[in-house]
Amino acid sequence: MADAPRIVRDPATMRAEVIANRTAGRRIGFVPTMGALHAGHCSLVERAAAECDDVVVSVFVNPTQFGPGEDYARYPRSLEADAALVGRLGVRWIHAPLADDIYPPGAATRVVVDGPATPFEGRARPGHFTGVATVVCRLFQAVPADVAYFGAKDWQQTLVVRRMVRDLGLPIEIVVCPTVREPDGLAMSSRNAYLDPDERFRAVALFESLEAATAAWERGAEVAVIERAMRAALVARGVAVDYASIVDSETLGSPVVGREAVALVAGRVGATRLIDNRVLAGRGSSA
Amino acid sequence: MADAPRIVRDPATMRAEVIANRTAGRRIGFVPTMGALHAGHCSLVERAAAECDDVVVSVFVNPTQFGPGEDYARYPRSLEADAALVGRLGVRWIHAPLADDIYPPGAATRVVVDGPATPFEGRARPGHFTGVATVVCRLFQAVPADVAYFGAKDWQQTLVVRRMVRDLGLPIEIVVCPTVREPDGLAMSSRNAYLDPDERFRAVALFESLEAATAAWERGAEVAVIERAMRAALVARGVAVDYASIVDSETLGSPVVGREAVALVAGRVGATRLIDNRVLAGRGSSA
Repeated sequence: MADAPRIVRDPATMRAEVIANRTAGRRIGFVPTMGALHAGHCSLVERAAAECDDVVVSVFVNPTQFGPGEDYARYPRSLEADAALVGRLGVRWIHAPLADDIYPPGAATRVVVDGPATPFEGRARPGHFTGVATVVCRLFQAVPADVAYFGAKDWQQTLVVRRMVRDLGLPIEIVVCPTVREPDGLAMSSRNAYLDPDERFRAVALFESLEAATAAWERGAEVAVIERAMRAALVARGVAVDYASIVDSETLGSPVVGREAVALVAGRVGATRLIDNRVLAGRGSSA
Repeated sequence: MADAPRIVRDPATMRAEVIANRTAGRRIGFVPTMGALHAGHCSLVERAAAECDDVVVSVFVNPTQFGPGEDYARYPRSLEADAALVGRLGVRWIHAPLADDIYPPGAATRVVVDGPATPFEGRARPGHFTGVATVVCRLFQAVPADVAYFGAKDWQQTLVVRRMVRDLGLPIEIVVCPTVREPDGLAMSSRNAYLDPDERFRAVALFESLEAATAAWERGAEVAVIERAMRAALVARGVAVDYASIVDSETLGSPVVGREAVALVAGRVGATRLIDNRVLAGRGSSA
């Protein structure tokens, strides 16, 4: 039976703990989250626990990555339940800073990523990735781990974080873990809690559109044809589509022959915005 | 007789050296520069050498902090002379990365500071402080020293760097060292090398305007009156004035009773843009 994780508020204390343990030769894994933990987060923690001596989970609902009118205020917060959940997985520390610890009075610094942050979520949620990059950079100072774990569900976010880490030379390894799904295929997300039963039923359309896109991609269908079919499948279930696209999995530009692609979907089911994606193996023709 | 400093190009190698020595209990001081080293830089190195066990000087002419039409291409470059100069002061490493090491292919990340970066140099040189903040953040990863030394001559830059360090929680102490001057008062600057004899003679007007401003400030003169006099003194010597202002030394807003202020001047002497400043003790009236 693992001990309960220690909850550490102060970033400087957190940093000192991580450094002391790394200096003693321990490998530290870090799973940054906004709390409201579910099986997707648990899979990141399990991977971290398997590969590292100690695991830190951060729980911080980052105000700067929410736009005006988004769900910052009502985003689910459940630190006690989160601690109990990951405690069972052997997490040693939960870093739960206060907003003032992360954004001190007069804070005026933003980490801005262009390139992979520009299309899709970048266009749908202006400032979102600046908030993500800034808080991840800040959290990597408080938790100077060997390796950090991110979920593939937020595909574009993983590209933005990798880009920032490479560009600023941040000394941490980034590992991306597969999306965890409900039995019917819906990607695990803290926002699924917002769905009423009818919306929950319709939300599976995102997964289904990706399934169909994968089959069509493997048959060699044209990208434009696949994208139209994805959109139609989503609309048929009442999803208000933001985008349904197939692009290069790294550049997010047009698919390139022989290179891995990714199908990206985003849309609103009722008032709840959901995203999902599926990586597609490179194929001979990108037509 | 100190050994010649070791020149390290690769940021990862540089980082490993610094960490190995810190882990062995040595205190490491860092002086980031663009090379073309002069007595001002030497004073930073001497302070670092007095306070630390080992000193790293970086030499990197950072393209992103120069605007279009500025002097990036002709900025003086003299790595051998720089190495000889600081070698005599006991510097252990010179970190001289290539541009591709600092800005990898596809680089798309900028560290943007608002607040103290907005007025004065921020207005005169759009993008300048974003270039500074980005490269300093990157260099702090390659040289994870205990403490970094900056010159007070670039007063606003010291505020921007401090702001970034505080906001991102970068684990390094910032020390600001006094401006070093020529016998006639001209602040040491690599750009002084651009001045012809007549320009060199006229350039002392920046220092003289600050001297006069200090005396007037201490007499209790009104800020607006002092600023007009500074500007007039500069114009009289043929300096094309960018700004000549007295502001709060930390916020760069209007001076506040009892708080330290700073007089800031910037202007062009011929084709060469020069800046200088003088910190002013808080006084009873800010009128």
